[in-house]
Amino acid sequence: MSLLVVGTTALDSIKTPWAENPRLLGGSASHASVAASFFTQPRLVGAVGDDFPRKYLNLYRRHGIDLGGLQQLPGQTFHWSGEYEVNMNNRRTLDTVLGVIENFSPTLPAAYTKLPYVLLANCAPDLQAHVLDQMKRPKFIVADTMDLWLNIARAPLLKLLKRIDCLALNDSEAAQLVEEDNPIAALPRIHKLGPKYVIVKKGEHGAILSGPKGLFLAPAYPLKKVIDPTGAGDSFIGGLMGHLASVKGGVEKNLRTALIHGTSTASLCCEGFGLKKTTTATKPEITRRVRQLAKLTTW
Amino acid sequence: MSLLVVGTTALDSIKTPWAENPRLLGGSASHASVAASFFTQPRLVGAVGDDFPRKYLNLYRRHGIDLGGLQQLPGQTFHWSGEYEVNMNNRRTLDTVLGVIENFSPTLPAAYTKLPYVLLANCAPDLQAHVLDQMKRPKFIVADTMDLWLNIARAPLLKLLKRIDCLALNDSEAAQLVEEDNPIAALPRIHKLGPKYVIVKKGEHGAILSGPKGLFLAPAYPLKKVIDPTGAGDSFIGGLMGHLASVKGGVEKNLRTALIHGTSTASLCCEGFGLKKTTTATKPEITRRVRQLAKLTTW
Repeated sequence: MSLLVVGTTALDSIKTPWAENPRLLGGSASHASVAASFFTQPRLVGAVGDDFPRKYLNLYRRHGIDLGGLQQLPGQTFHWSGEYEVNMNNRRTLDTVLGVIENFSPTLPAAYTKLPYVLLANCAPDLQAHVLDQMKRPKFIVADTMDLWLNIARAPLLKLLKRIDCLALNDSEAAQLVEEDNPIAALPRIHKLGPKYVIVKKGEHGAILSGPKGLFLAPAYPLKKVIDPTGAGDSFIGGLMGHLASVKGGVEKNLRTALIHGTSTASLCCEGFGLKKTTTATKPEITRRVRQLAKLTTW
Repeated sequence: MSLLVVGTTALDSIKTPWAENPRLLGGSASHASVAASFFTQPRLVGAVGDDFPRKYLNLYRRHGIDLGGLQQLPGQTFHWSGEYEVNMNNRRTLDTVLGVIENFSPTLPAAYTKLPYVLLANCAPDLQAHVLDQMKRPKFIVADTMDLWLNIARAPLLKLLKRIDCLALNDSEAAQLVEEDNPIAALPRIHKLGPKYVIVKKGEHGAILSGPKGLFLAPAYPLKKVIDPTGAGDSFIGGLMGHLASVKGGVEKNLRTALIHGTSTASLCCEGFGLKKTTTATKPEITRRVRQLAKLTTW
């Protein structure tokens, strides 16, 4: 089985207190696809400009990512620059150039429309909905989102929530969405907006999955040093969906294990700038962290 | 086997955005002893003033707490008043009256000095050390502390750390102690200060245990509503030590399970003002939450 990933394909300029890295490969769909590629073949839907480095196309290809849905359009690639503080939970956006994704409205390759697993990685809810419109009875649809869309595109986001199986968002976004600071109290309210499953991402504190069988409290993989958390949430959900698309037995049976595979993949992402560590990681490294997480949480 | 608990026995006036409760029974030793009483008989060492309500002495007795080490002295009982914001992670102290604990320097009853488990609940490091001086080869010594002592009594605290088996402190205090924001990186530095085991408390995000066999990532019990988190950390460490003192097989074998029992007891504490919910809880309620936590974290 295979996985469709739509989201941003971007160039990220990332500043931390210790280093500055201009024009790295970034974007939600890049991180999610590379993460998913350890488990299944992702089909990538996105748009890049004519300034997009060939080496990044090669990077996608090295990971076996199907680029039939990636369009190279005249104009600039989406470019995000941001700066992290010493406490890496705090970051601020320095500049955003939307470029070619501003009016991106793709027609999917026919083969893509029949894929069973759909990851609407973080991008405009209208783009997420436009891709979903073209899908033919997918088995499991996850959407990731961020505060930006809660601020500027709340109505289309709320419409989208009625059409997806699972929403992923971080704890402050969950609080913003339903005006409730306590994620345990926020979860039932988010379910009422549509999704059967909700995943609240808490960064270094792990994640909470809520579904028909109740809650699952997932740990984060403990890291001594975080180099760059950009894309960790995308890697998490990409690894999760990649694992889910690669195993037998259905969503309910495998979703908890999928979260742990996502967690493990996301931890690698944090250990290098941009995709640096993730692209050089191996499946056995991910599997080893999954096994370690079992040991770290058993009593 | 049994447990010595030394710490503050106080009156707490607690304000939240929803309610105000004056002169509740509080203090680290009160919360820790009541929590431990579900598992073993705690022997309480503390001091109260002549204003201490008789009903609170009866409360201790109802919980089977041995009061042979509780002195009633002329003067005021230690009184803390504080206020919580809507986000209950934020609280501020409105007033502190030290009263009789200011110069409290107890001589322990002889029987107390041979107890195998020692909980130096949060109080001045000098008082913790003074009690420890009188103990004869205890089996396991845990000290809890707080930012106040890091600020005003760092030297005696550092001295104490060389004499205990386990230090419990919250994540911001761990960061302050060794000037390292990432708790995973802070832990080895804290071990270097003395304790073989370190427990970093993260409130709603659970706790991290670090010891000779590596890390244990303990979840928090998910609560839809927190009424008053005052004493949750004391209840956690009290439940932990109570469980440990009640089971066979040694510390290393039982410490992870003890953390989960502490977590479960602490969650009850958060569901009522002061000790209100904890004192009306039952052992089966605690055990049920322990079982639930196993289900909530298994994949």
